[in-house]
Amino acid sequence: MLTTRLHKLIQNHKDFPTQGILFRDLLPVLQEPAVYSELIASMASAPVFEKADAIISIDARGFLFGSSLALVLEKPMIVARKPGKLPGDVLSKSYNLEYGSNSLSIQRNALNAYDKYVIVDDLLATGGTVQCVSSIVNSVGKKILGLSVVIELSELNGKSLLDFPVYSQVSY
Amino acid sequence: MLTTRLHKLIQNHKDFPTQGILFRDLLPVLQEPAVYSELIASMASAPVFEKADAIISIDARGFLFGSSLALVLEKPMIVARKPGKLPGDVLSKSYNLEYGSNSLSIQRNALNAYDKYVIVDDLLATGGTVQCVSSIVNSVGKKILGLSVVIELSELNGKSLLDFPVYSQVSY
Repeated sequence: MLTTRLHKLIQNHKDFPTQGILFRDLLPVLQEPAVYSELIASMASAPVFEKADAIISIDARGFLFGSSLALVLEKPMIVARKPGKLPGDVLSKSYNLEYGSNSLSIQRNALNAYDKYVIVDDLLATGGTVQCVSSIVNSVGKKILGLSVVIELSELNGKSLLDFPVYSQVSY
Repeated sequence: MLTTRLHKLIQNHKDFPTQGILFRDLLPVLQEPAVYSELIASMASAPVFEKADAIISIDARGFLFGSSLALVLEKPMIVARKPGKLPGDVLSKSYNLEYGSNSLSIQRNALNAYDKYVIVDDLLATGGTVQCVSSIVNSVGKKILGLSVVIELSELNGKSLLDFPVYSQVSY
C-alpha cells in the first residue's frame, strides 16, 4: 500500500532545521521510481484537479511533485517563489512558518492567465505558506480550489487556516 | 518544432537579478502543457540516461525538469541543494556563478546509493554550478555521465569547464 511505502521511506530528523523541529525528509521517495510514480498517480487522482485551470507549485520542494503532476495531468503550472527569484512584475506577501518567517512572490502575468488553481507542496505544517499563496491569488480575484501535499502534520492543524480542502497522502 | 516553440515562450529580462545580466525566464514553458510534455520527451530521449543509475537535479529550477524526467525515465532522483536545506550528513562545496557565489550540498546517503549520474538543470551559464555538483560527486569516487539542460548560453562557454557531454534544447 502506498501509505505504508511512504511511511517506510520518509526519514525523520530531530532538531532540523532548528531546535525542537522534527523534520520529515521525503527525498528518499524520489529514489524509488515505482513509489514516486504511484505517489504522483495517487495525487493526480484527486478530482479537484479536473476543475482547476492551473497548478501552483511552491518553491522548492513543491516543484518535485507539482511538475510531475502538471505533466501527467496536462495542466499549466505556475510557481510561488522566494524573494528575488522571479523576474518581471510580481505580487508578493510575507508569512510566518513553522520556524521563522519568509515571503513568497508570484508573477502577475502568470496569475492573469487563469482563474482557478490547486496548490501543490510537499508538506502541510502550520499552513502559513499555503495561506500566503492563497492570499496573493485572492488579492487579484482568483480562486484556490484545494491543496495537494504528500505529508500533512495533523497536530499542527494547518487545515484550520484554509478555506479549501486539503488532499494529503500520509499524515503524522 | 520544439526549438521554435521554446524560443517563443522563453522571456528575456534585462538586468535581472543584477545589472548586466540578461535573464532567460523559461517558466512560461510550464504554462503550455503540450510544449512542456514535448520538452520532457526530448530531454528524456538522450541515450546518456540509459547508462545512468540516477539523476541529480539542482535546486530549484532544475527540480522543474528533473522530477518529470525521473518520472518518465523511471530513474531514481537525488538533489543538490542550497545551504541549510538538506537534513542529515551532507557533502558541501562552494562555487562562483554568473552573478555572485553560492554553495551546494548533497546528502551522503543519497550519493552512496549510486555510481553514475546525469545532472539536470534549467540552464547552463558559466558552468560553475554544475562543476560544483560534479566535484562533490567525484570526491566520493562517483561519476557524472552528462548534463541535461533546457537552455545553454553558448557564449559563456560553460562546456569548457566540464569533462562530460552537455545536452541542451535551445541555445543563445
